[in-house]
Amino acid sequence: MAESSPSLLSGIQSPDDVKGLPFEKLPALAREVRETLIQTTSLNGGHLGPNLGVVELSIMLHRTFSTPRDQFVFDVSHQGYVHKLLTGRQGEAFAKIRQSEGLSGFLNREESDHDSWGAGHAGTALAAAVGMAAARDRKNTGEHVVALVGDAAFTCGITLEGLNNVTAATKRLVVILNDNEWSIDKNVGAISKYLNELITNPVYNRMHQDMESFLKKIPGGDSLIRMGSRTKQSAKNIIAPSSIFEKFGLRYLGPIDGHDFEELEKYLNFCKESTEPVVLHVITKKGKGYDAALGSPEKFHGTSPFEIKTGQSRKSGKAGPPAYQDVMGKALVRFARNDRQVVGITAAMPSGTGLSYLRDTLPDQYYDVGIAEEHAVLFAGGLAARGMKPVCAIYSTFLQRAFDPIIHDICLQNLNVLFCLDRAGLSPNDGATHHGLFDLSYLRSIPNAMVLAPKDEDELVDMMWTALNHNGPVFIRYPRGAGLGVQIKETPEILPHGKAEILLRGKDFSIWTLGAMIPTALELADHFKKELGLSVGVVNARSVKPLDEKLLSRQAGEFPLLVTLEDNVRAGGFGSAVGEALLDRGHPTRLLRLGWPDRFVEHGNSVEQLRAENGLDNPSLLRKILENLPEGLTPKRHSTPSATVKS
Amino acid sequence: MAESSPSLLSGIQSPDDVKGLPFEKLPALAREVRETLIQTTSLNGGHLGPNLGVVELSIMLHRTFSTPRDQFVFDVSHQGYVHKLLTGRQGEAFAKIRQSEGLSGFLNREESDHDSWGAGHAGTALAAAVGMAAARDRKNTGEHVVALVGDAAFTCGITLEGLNNVTAATKRLVVILNDNEWSIDKNVGAISKYLNELITNPVYNRMHQDMESFLKKIPGGDSLIRMGSRTKQSAKNIIAPSSIFEKFGLRYLGPIDGHDFEELEKYLNFCKESTEPVVLHVITKKGKGYDAALGSPEKFHGTSPFEIKTGQSRKSGKAGPPAYQDVMGKALVRFARNDRQVVGITAAMPSGTGLSYLRDTLPDQYYDVGIAEEHAVLFAGGLAARGMKPVCAIYSTFLQRAFDPIIHDICLQNLNVLFCLDRAGLSPNDGATHHGLFDLSYLRSIPNAMVLAPKDEDELVDMMWTALNHNGPVFIRYPRGAGLGVQIKETPEILPHGKAEILLRGKDFSIWTLGAMIPTALELADHFKKELGLSVGVVNARSVKPLDEKLLSRQAGEFPLLVTLEDNVRAGGFGSAVGEALLDRGHPTRLLRLGWPDRFVEHGNSVEQLRAENGLDNPSLLRKILENLPEGLTPKRHSTPSATVKS
Repeated sequence: MAESSPSLLSGIQSPDDVKGLPFEKLPALAREVRETLIQTTSLNGGHLGPNLGVVELSIMLHRTFSTPRDQFVFDVSHQGYVHKLLTGRQGEAFAKIRQSEGLSGFLNREESDHDSWGAGHAGTALAAAVGMAAARDRKNTGEHVVALVGDAAFTCGITLEGLNNVTAATKRLVVILNDNEWSIDKNVGAISKYLNELITNPVYNRMHQDMESFLKKIPGGDSLIRMGSRTKQSAKNIIAPSSIFEKFGLRYLGPIDGHDFEELEKYLNFCKESTEPVVLHVITKKGKGYDAALGSPEKFHGTSPFEIKTGQSRKSGKAGPPAYQDVMGKALVRFARNDRQVVGITAAMPSGTGLSYLRDTLPDQYYDVGIAEEHAVLFAGGLAARGMKPVCAIYSTFLQRAFDPIIHDICLQNLNVLFCLDRAGLSPNDGATHHGLFDLSYLRSIPNAMVLAPKDEDELVDMMWTALNHNGPVFIRYPRGAGLGVQIKETPEILPHGKAEILLRGKDFSIWTLGAMIPTALELADHFKKELGLSVGVVNARSVKPLDEKLLSRQAGEFPLLVTLEDNVRAGGFGSAVGEALLDRGHPTRLLRLGWPDRFVEHGNSVEQLRAENGLDNPSLLRKILENLPEGLTPKRHSTPSATVKS
Repeated sequence: MAESSPSLLSGIQSPDDVKGLPFEKLPALAREVRETLIQTTSLNGGHLGPNLGVVELSIMLHRTFSTPRDQFVFDVSHQGYVHKLLTGRQGEAFAKIRQSEGLSGFLNREESDHDSWGAGHAGTALAAAVGMAAARDRKNTGEHVVALVGDAAFTCGITLEGLNNVTAATKRLVVILNDNEWSIDKNVGAISKYLNELITNPVYNRMHQDMESFLKKIPGGDSLIRMGSRTKQSAKNIIAPSSIFEKFGLRYLGPIDGHDFEELEKYLNFCKESTEPVVLHVITKKGKGYDAALGSPEKFHGTSPFEIKTGQSRKSGKAGPPAYQDVMGKALVRFARNDRQVVGITAAMPSGTGLSYLRDTLPDQYYDVGIAEEHAVLFAGGLAARGMKPVCAIYSTFLQRAFDPIIHDICLQNLNVLFCLDRAGLSPNDGATHHGLFDLSYLRSIPNAMVLAPKDEDELVDMMWTALNHNGPVFIRYPRGAGLGVQIKETPEILPHGKAEILLRGKDFSIWTLGAMIPTALELADHFKKELGLSVGVVNARSVKPLDEKLLSRQAGEFPLLVTLEDNVRAGGFGSAVGEALLDRGHPTRLLRLGWPDRFVEHGNSVEQLRAENGLDNPSLLRKILENLPEGLTPKRHSTPSATVKS
């Protein structure tokens, strides 16, 4: 912990306190902030690396500008913890970040007036900031709008669309390019290469030096600097290749050292006074101030709880079942090794999706396209159109980005692309921006799409194999985290088209479910049997589209009640598909659809806790089923369900 | 018609025939192609302007490259008619373009081997071409991949994502930048300005001249040119500001005159031999060769049938009811005039959306962001976050592009953005890429979204007014084309939240419907009454989300059958929402859901014809209802429905 006491950070109740600190105390404040970041994330997990990189930058932003009047728009807001600490959210709230009743791990308009814009997906900040600046211009309210955008966000089409629209929409905007050469993994693509050239280009560095000495020579010269800026700009264009930002009409400044308080102060003040849209290129070090994070920037981008001394994950003790992402990644390597037409595509998420196995084993069959989900899908389409078998691995929530290419390009042309959607269901600590609760609804309305969800790791591999042998697009969705620990067959099986699987035969009613909800359904059935004397069947639907309407019809004829249980919103989801099929056939069976309600689900400690808060824990599910039992189907024994079913 | 006979064009059965023509015959071929284009679109309507601009370019592409082995990827494929004429699709097939049994107005992989990639949405070509080039590199098959991309596509994030990934994915790709300074309307944004500077920049033009003379001096020098290219490139970077394409790692050539056969031949051959990804900047004139199209590039971008002599629309005779787009545009002007917080945003579609009225009347409250739907939505979000009332007018099919910002930014943050979705339902001549048949499915699963569809023009204005007074995002979807001709109230009304409206009281069963399907429902009800002696109610649902569950419950208790009828796919659509509500309340009512089937709907002559082909014409609907009438609800009279109901 900090040697100095009393702590500087505890005295920071608002940005005014940041402004009130003597300049020479700033390094000590930065140290305390870093200690707090490391301490807290070591317990809660979280985006440590990105935040360690922006400590000085965040402090100087709050000394230069004044939120909540001024608007800070943090792209993807992986780097918003320091901002939270400096805007009245330290102490207990911060200690519980990403936990129930604690702060969100992202910016959140409902959490604080200092949070102008919430975000958990990359690339949105510039566009939103342009909108805010345009509103400011219209209303003549004069506040500053500052977008903080990582270098990786420039691989993202939305950022580039925003860049194209800056000068048409506003005359004044500050864009901080927080360049740490990383997104979640090492950054890729031409722009990333280009930014690296900017940093190392001697001409640019000389320009920067020139500006330094120019500024130093002129006493008290903010207004002089402003006057001079236009001339300098022209001069720069003559002797140096103009930067890409200038081609978009923005003034480019930098690169500067993002850990140097004096340099930051000078340049941020210059930006503040600028009367044209300006990009300040700030070089920061992801993980700065913590050796373990510097050494493993990918791991510490978003880390699970860890031991501070070693940087080792806390959970590393006993090995549980493998995560779905690892099963997917390893299976893909097997398939790609046997068939060179099989290639993997990730949008800047090699580790999270498990494609890192392919990258490390068969790099030639691996593509990372950056945070560019639409490109990823279209690129896959182009490959498929020429006979390749692309596997596009994108989290459920991020695949929303590519909804149009999925319809207009892949499904309309019925191309053989396999989509692997990790994080379908909850991402509990991340919250609303990261839950994958919509994919069944948005995918099942698309013609030609096959939509599957595996019951376990082995079935995931079977489904991948089935998809690689299917003519047309296939979407496989599976949850974040560990599988069930089942054995994976040596030779995968091609699953029958649109066939559900009866896991448990029942006599009284039947639960249709899939994916991560299957264990819950089995527990419920077990409870009904043991405690209530009802015989409940469980069906693994496997395929949401096409649905096994034959089995469904049969069961609808057999049972007075069917229950669906899914890890997706109820609106338009799996249960809705079952309902459509029943209504279309005129089955009078009662259907009880259990799934996520029609509201955004916030973050929380765990899947279990969020289920409980949203009526999807076992006692709640049991209660709902009991309330909906048709006449003639009453429990044969009586017990208090909430007392006997494990929650 | 062409003076020369026999016609050159009729001798072109394949690209080989294009290659076989003597060079000096090319201008005559171009003339014949233009005459065919003008002749055909004057009858069928279609994308005349863009195609007139690429006649020489298309001819020279087919002389230089060899499809179907080589892959041409036409962005948005507004400019694919000439390509169709040169690849065996002239004559009757072309004469029926955009009509039933005729060619598609867009490229289509099922229509011809020469069509490598179908598209009706902009910005997809570069990404798909990069995928094809990567496949080619992997398989070592050696074909050329040529992406033809309009300048407007560079306002589109997907194109820019593609650009960022070219050099990482392939060593060889030809990108033709077809620069006519237009998208559908005059192009906007920084890149467009920048391209214009490239064209007019004397340094670049001198470079081009230098290259000309260089090429002329060296006899037979393709290979020499290749050898020289690297050196020239470096030289160019020293004396001229390097182009934006070079910052993305592509070699930039041009600008050249896209109507000069010799220049095209020379540069296309250079591109063909290039061993690095290359952009050829080709300047073309939209509408070239037809004065009316040159004079009104916006009208002739995609025109309705017209008189060749005057360029006047054929339909101009009697004025029918106003189009929804005009009603929306004019209402927006009214609202924006009274409330300066109201602003309109279009993604390069001012005329099609009706926002041109706002542009012309209150230009200060109007934004055109280019073909950048995601930016449009986020920009609107930024404006809304700062207290403005943005109205985002985007066609249903194009709003698919912004699905993620709609969820992650607008709905999650519950921002006050009004979305006006024109072209919800069919765009008959355009076909599968343009129908707006998914929006009810993809919007209604999103929390906080209000989803409305008006029965007529007046209700559209009421809904807009309701939305502007509502706290949270609202989506209003309405069809392409004319309204019903009803009077629009002077003062709009705020509609009650989530309330349906009974249009016709019935005693036997009830049809729940909305928007463009309401007249059909009324006709069906009328037929049931007059011909079959059944009393059928009709409900204007108005709000798909929230649904009027109270009225629905009441009617479910009253009637043994409810019918839903919608201009959306059945999967997950309005009827699905009604079904969910009925099942949730355990109503045993029969529900018959009528809507678009689970397949992509091709182009055709008219809405009526496509409805007939897909079982949504009145006789089919009537038959389906009759087949599903519950026992006890039999027609009181007998007649042959298909003979008596108007189709």
